[in-house]
Amino acid sequence: MKNGKFITFEGTDGSGKTTQIKLLEGYVREKGYEVVLSREPGGTKVSESIRDIILDPSNTDITPLTEMIMYAASRAQHVAQVIRPAVEAGKVVICDRFVDSSYAYQGSGRGVDLRIIADVNRVAIDGMSPDMTFFLDIAPETAIKRRINASGADRIEQEKIDFHRRVYEGYKKMALLFPERIRAIDANKSISEISSQIIECLNELL
Amino acid sequence: MKNGKFITFEGTDGSGKTTQIKLLEGYVREKGYEVVLSREPGGTKVSESIRDIILDPSNTDITPLTEMIMYAASRAQHVAQVIRPAVEAGKVVICDRFVDSSYAYQGSGRGVDLRIIADVNRVAIDGMSPDMTFFLDIAPETAIKRRINASGADRIEQEKIDFHRRVYEGYKKMALLFPERIRAIDANKSISEISSQIIECLNELL
Repeated sequence: MKNGKFITFEGTDGSGKTTQIKLLEGYVREKGYEVVLSREPGGTKVSESIRDIILDPSNTDITPLTEMIMYAASRAQHVAQVIRPAVEAGKVVICDRFVDSSYAYQGSGRGVDLRIIADVNRVAIDGMSPDMTFFLDIAPETAIKRRINASGADRIEQEKIDFHRRVYEGYKKMALLFPERIRAIDANKSISEISSQIIECLNELL
Repeated sequence: MKNGKFITFEGTDGSGKTTQIKLLEGYVREKGYEVVLSREPGGTKVSESIRDIILDPSNTDITPLTEMIMYAASRAQHVAQVIRPAVEAGKVVICDRFVDSSYAYQGSGRGVDLRIIADVNRVAIDGMSPDMTFFLDIAPETAIKRRINASGADRIEQEKIDFHRRVYEGYKKMALLFPERIRAIDANKSISEISSQIIECLNELL
């Protein structure tokens, strides 16, 4: 069934995921693979609609539990419509955020029990676990500065620095728990150094 | 913690839930209880937004699994914002549809594994199980006729009769599995006969 590969990128806002995804896309295409780029929580019309509800600044009353389940619903649709068909067609899917974001943001960040997140996401991803995950490891204090010039701030970006610190620690914990799948990449280095390290890891897979 | 009561109504479309809820509301108020009426999948701003996505006729590509998880997200918010606060304040909450609708519609109706529905909903309701559930038991062929004059048809109502037949069989199975909680009421009888039977059951609880 699964002939292609499924790669995800994780990290706090401003960790440089977008830049590194573009660079990796170019590399994988040069190797002759078809690449599909996507992002969580969007990627499909339904998922984008769910994202709009979550990020609407007027929806301040969404509980952490509801938020976690909404991301899982969005993810289920994303898997069914985008990720699984592409991977089964032999393509390489590179996705900006996936389940580890739920562990880091709703779990470590907002305090939802990690076992509960695992229960719901096991259902949502229906076996479609990433083959490799790149965690761009950079302190949130540094990462947030990179975002300062970004236009507009959604509800999650307005959160205080201690939230981002908890998210970051959550990612580090996940990387320790799943060292085979999650590769922590020092994202304080230069763009080209980071890219080289990612490509080195990826060559184990492709 | 739980001083009030949580009552749910279930059944296929047109089974007469709205009428019976109104009658029960009057009875419970006369007994001196504060009553909160609600309905699934709505009941909160966030839940209504989720409902809008699910029922949007242009969203024909929502998978049964995504739909099930979206209802669970809506339910989690509904429990946190409406049901739990009211029950803990000693009120009687009467809700039009709850978890049994997921088993009947997404499970028996659309084929989602009932264990998966249980896993996700256990998380979503977070211990807030109904104290009593009234299943208005009427064949879908009869029930649908009652809906014929209703204005507008959403996506779920356009489904074919065999879908409603599966939903109905799903409800009957649930009522057999949980006879203490779920009371099957013969909804072919007159409005006043149905109401009397519901009140008789409720008096065991209040």
